[in-house]
Amino acid sequence: MRIAVVAPARSIRPESAARGAAFAALEFPEAELAFDPQCFAEAGHFAGPDALRAETFLRYANDPAYDAIWFARGGYGSNRILAEVMPKLTDAARAKTYMGFSDMGFLLGALYARRIGRPCHGPMSTEATARNRGGPAWRALAWLTGKDRRALEPGLDGRPAAAFNLAIITAMLGTPWVPDLTDHVLLLEEVGESYYRIDRMMFQLANAPQLRGLAGIRLGSVTDVPEGDGPEAFGETIEAMMTRWCREMRVPYLGRAKIGHDAENTVVPFGIA
Amino acid sequence: MRIAVVAPARSIRPESAARGAAFAALEFPEAELAFDPQCFAEAGHFAGPDALRAETFLRYANDPAYDAIWFARGGYGSNRILAEVMPKLTDAARAKTYMGFSDMGFLLGALYARRIGRPCHGPMSTEATARNRGGPAWRALAWLTGKDRRALEPGLDGRPAAAFNLAIITAMLGTPWVPDLTDHVLLLEEVGESYYRIDRMMFQLANAPQLRGLAGIRLGSVTDVPEGDGPEAFGETIEAMMTRWCREMRVPYLGRAKIGHDAENTVVPFGIA
Repeated sequence: MRIAVVAPARSIRPESAARGAAFAALEFPEAELAFDPQCFAEAGHFAGPDALRAETFLRYANDPAYDAIWFARGGYGSNRILAEVMPKLTDAARAKTYMGFSDMGFLLGALYARRIGRPCHGPMSTEATARNRGGPAWRALAWLTGKDRRALEPGLDGRPAAAFNLAIITAMLGTPWVPDLTDHVLLLEEVGESYYRIDRMMFQLANAPQLRGLAGIRLGSVTDVPEGDGPEAFGETIEAMMTRWCREMRVPYLGRAKIGHDAENTVVPFGIA
Repeated sequence: MRIAVVAPARSIRPESAARGAAFAALEFPEAELAFDPQCFAEAGHFAGPDALRAETFLRYANDPAYDAIWFARGGYGSNRILAEVMPKLTDAARAKTYMGFSDMGFLLGALYARRIGRPCHGPMSTEATARNRGGPAWRALAWLTGKDRRALEPGLDGRPAAAFNLAIITAMLGTPWVPDLTDHVLLLEEVGESYYRIDRMMFQLANAPQLRGLAGIRLGSVTDVPEGDGPEAFGETIEAMMTRWCREMRVPYLGRAKIGHDAENTVVPFGIA
């Protein structure tokens, strides 16, 4: 089982890669992790220039010697390589699993839109911070190496699902990169956003014909809300907000989900798990 | 000349209305300003519940006794009344001018999409903070009362134009509220956003078929960028970023514009001025 680790958005430090490799060696000795040096590259905000990030992703995606791509970290930037990489993916890319979340939703969404490989929302390599069987990095590798169902979001119910950071899926709306999520349960999570911004994103999602036909919406964690811009200032709890928008969309609100920018984050394979 | 002042997003204080009224009385005695009490209502984040804000906007928009609607303030919330108000606008609404910016871009854009009235990007009533002939409030009222061309954005060149806050126009993408801006020069401004978020918004704008066919893009002010998230961290100046995205869109970048969240903000009538 060979897993390539690349960073299509922001960089990681070599120590983080070393921790990830050590974690995998201890917990999943059958997995062979390859951290590409691109993970450590720096160009302004990004883990190297767009061309390097695109070339690195393509090189592993199209290499039949690798079974999966595990994204190192989110941040911002994977959207900037979509136009370059998506048309160049080959059959080897179709046979792979792709795991990550947050900004990686751009890539996972674009892959799923073309039904290329098996995109999975899930923890990333930087989350291997200590030996914690059952923790985020364990879940990611348990799914990648053995489809261990203990890694899955516990509410998945046999219907197709997809999971996104709300800011990422709304930043795809109106573009050709959005996957068709008809009859899917959509799991959403958010980090670092004011309630009024979350409401604005839900407005966009609710008004977008591209997302008609959802089977339901579930809400993951909403963390690091800026001080003073939460439920009190907004005048509504996050659950009331979601229930209201789901009613407006005529889509069932199906309650909470264990995804998000926290230690509870689980694996959500796009489609049927 | 009768001008109604309403607040479809956040509220203003009575003192702010008093200053606006005094400013208008001194500088534009021919204008009769009516601040509706809805401007002072409070409901969580908003200037009263959605229903009140919608009803108030509709009441003045459909009243032939008023020549214009001057928005009191932005913030967040005008998007939440679109579905209620847009189908109910009558011929009286078509004969009016609408002036505001920032969050009001949702209403201006939706009005322009249906070619209802004359939507204008421009300063709002809260900007009448002192007697400053030539200042923001002066420009708004000089255009509303007498089509004084000294109020206009100085680079308007006879081609159709439209002006938006970048976060607002991107929050409309993928929804039916976006106006057709084919052959328009699009003026963009931003406030309080990190460079990586501005880049993400430009990605969405550049990838949106709804905005194909622009005649050019001009950049207004970009103010209140969060500390540490500006050009140094991002690795690119704002003008380099805009030039790059315009190149990607194959749309001419036409340089800077005098719009934005500052005292230089000018009037941009949607369409041809």
